[in-house]
Amino acid sequence: MKKNDNAKKALALHKKLGGKIRILPAAPVRNRADLSLVYTPGVAAVSSHVAKHKQDARIYTMKGRMVAVISDGSAVLGLGNIGALGALPVMEGKCALFKTFADVDAVPIVLDTQDADAIVDTVIRIAPAFGGINLEDIAAPKCFEIEQRVIDALDIPVMHDDQHGTAIVVLAGLINSMKVVKKDMNKCTLTVSGVGAAGVATMRLLKRYAPKVKILAVDSTGIVWSGRDDLNSTKKELIRNKTIFAESGGDLSKALINSDVFLGLSRPGVINAAMIKKMARDPIIFAMANPLPEIMPDEAKKGGAKVIATGRSDFPNQVNNSLAFPGVFRGALDNRVRRITDEMKIKAAKAIAGLIKKPGTQKILPDMFDKRVAKQVAKAVR
Amino acid sequence: MKKNDNAKKALALHKKLGGKIRILPAAPVRNRADLSLVYTPGVAAVSSHVAKHKQDARIYTMKGRMVAVISDGSAVLGLGNIGALGALPVMEGKCALFKTFADVDAVPIVLDTQDADAIVDTVIRIAPAFGGINLEDIAAPKCFEIEQRVIDALDIPVMHDDQHGTAIVVLAGLINSMKVVKKDMNKCTLTVSGVGAAGVATMRLLKRYAPKVKILAVDSTGIVWSGRDDLNSTKKELIRNKTIFAESGGDLSKALINSDVFLGLSRPGVINAAMIKKMARDPIIFAMANPLPEIMPDEAKKGGAKVIATGRSDFPNQVNNSLAFPGVFRGALDNRVRRITDEMKIKAAKAIAGLIKKPGTQKILPDMFDKRVAKQVAKAVR
Repeated sequence: MKKNDNAKKALALHKKLGGKIRILPAAPVRNRADLSLVYTPGVAAVSSHVAKHKQDARIYTMKGRMVAVISDGSAVLGLGNIGALGALPVMEGKCALFKTFADVDAVPIVLDTQDADAIVDTVIRIAPAFGGINLEDIAAPKCFEIEQRVIDALDIPVMHDDQHGTAIVVLAGLINSMKVVKKDMNKCTLTVSGVGAAGVATMRLLKRYAPKVKILAVDSTGIVWSGRDDLNSTKKELIRNKTIFAESGGDLSKALINSDVFLGLSRPGVINAAMIKKMARDPIIFAMANPLPEIMPDEAKKGGAKVIATGRSDFPNQVNNSLAFPGVFRGALDNRVRRITDEMKIKAAKAIAGLIKKPGTQKILPDMFDKRVAKQVAKAVR
Repeated sequence: MKKNDNAKKALALHKKLGGKIRILPAAPVRNRADLSLVYTPGVAAVSSHVAKHKQDARIYTMKGRMVAVISDGSAVLGLGNIGALGALPVMEGKCALFKTFADVDAVPIVLDTQDADAIVDTVIRIAPAFGGINLEDIAAPKCFEIEQRVIDALDIPVMHDDQHGTAIVVLAGLINSMKVVKKDMNKCTLTVSGVGAAGVATMRLLKRYAPKVKILAVDSTGIVWSGRDDLNSTKKELIRNKTIFAESGGDLSKALINSDVFLGLSRPGVINAAMIKKMARDPIIFAMANPLPEIMPDEAKKGGAKVIATGRSDFPNQVNNSLAFPGVFRGALDNRVRRITDEMKIKAAKAIAGLIKKPGTQKILPDMFDKRVAKQVAKAVR
């Protein structure tokens, strides 16, 4: 019932608004004098200057403040591959958040193609007007290749938020969770359920942060390990680079025995209280499938979970990308950052975690409406 | 001096603004309740609905109000081929005018390619979020092919404004000029200097409006006629379709003998007072090269010109696309128009002309800040 109410309200609001963003002139155009500066003939001087001094586009044009939020609609929220138009309301919402949380101007672009080559070509071709590219809701594993190719081609920051926004916020939450249970991440075993965009990027970043952490990756077939012959190139690379521990197979239940942390970036119902009982002392459970988590918090508590986080706003410890992406791009624009590096992501995670002075089981992450968050994250990205 | 002052002021204003458009949320996101409607979880209901009922994207998303202003920077103002970044200030200015004159939300997109196939592919791929496409400052003759291919591929209105915006406003100005000199356009001879995007579209529309008008087209080589072997496909088509009279060659001076109208969409200095003296009675001179017209108004007057129009705001009778494009797209969005037809363009021209109750030599077109203009044009586009 409550869910239906929210859906109905959301539909009604969207219908009333007719789209969630508006484009406004930065300066009023009231008369010919205004027009002669904003448009012809004055604009010719600006166009000539920018054409000659391309780096000055950041000063004289929207490039200095504008991010494109681009999706092909192949992996939208929990809805899956619903295509460009289905993705559009999410991208518009994201642009509204960019402005709200970090005063970043962001434009939604949804693509009428799901071909990796075509996506890469298109993003590169429309890039000149933008100071950053936020790729969004593009399915794994093609998202990894697409992001890398676009990064390599452009001189502006490019980030697939499903990957890195998630990774940053999970790391922030884990940093504080470790304080709560008084453990060292480098001595922990983490079990990650879900080896898609978010799972892969999160594992990579955690390994950069704590090189000695032991990570077990579990997909829908079981533990990702070298004995399997059904692995895609990304999973093989995780093994080859020793991001994950891959010396024996098994199911999630087996992987969780003596694990310190469960990170769910997968789907509802994969873990239960009995499985948590077999984890190491003070289990940390991040059940981030949305809207239905891998396990409901009360059930996790029955299994003995010490710290419980979800993706939802109606439970404590919400792991939400909104804590990261607005500040990341704010910082990238302010500091003219060309690449968003792992070091920046780790600094951003530490900045988010650092906003909680005394982490506790009910408080490992700041509220996303905490105005300090984007500012601190922006400072980290330079 | 004055020109330099304006250029300096324009540069200073652009630097201060840092881009001429801003993206704002249509509704505030103040708290979790707002967020649950604008973004997750509420947005999922909207995405699901739009993915299933694609035509409803116009109701629930930005598609119902948003136009993309797209350029490859190959023919910018009087500056020529200055590329994507050089074009950006112009496209931003255009978006500011869209909002100012017709409350149309418009996004600048500048392309890092000047290849016709790549432009067509890119525009089609980014089209889903938009309710209309304004192509801008793309060089002739490729602009004709690009526009046609994009029109054929999409179910939203597409207009290359350099062509059709100009054609509409020129026709509006000519309708009233004919009243001033008491002539029937169907009995007139028009000489058009410039066979680029604007010249070609204007000739085509005038011929639709007045099928018996005799049009002579003159390019930098002279009169376009069947005896020449240097004509591009567009010029050949103008001859084949009998849009232009092409039975003998010569220069502009020859073409103008006994012409009723000179339309300049070319470059400064191509016509002088002596040439105007050889035109038919009460010559109508539209010298629209910008910022320097084909002939200055005082010089045209010396030749006996009766009605004189330019592209400039500092002389009477400014022929400016801003009279057409905002209302055209406003009408197209309001009335869910899929194609902008010649009939609509002619109706729009009549609507603009009709706003001048008593046309005179100093008043053939309304002021672009006249709020009635976009409204009347929008009514014509349905």
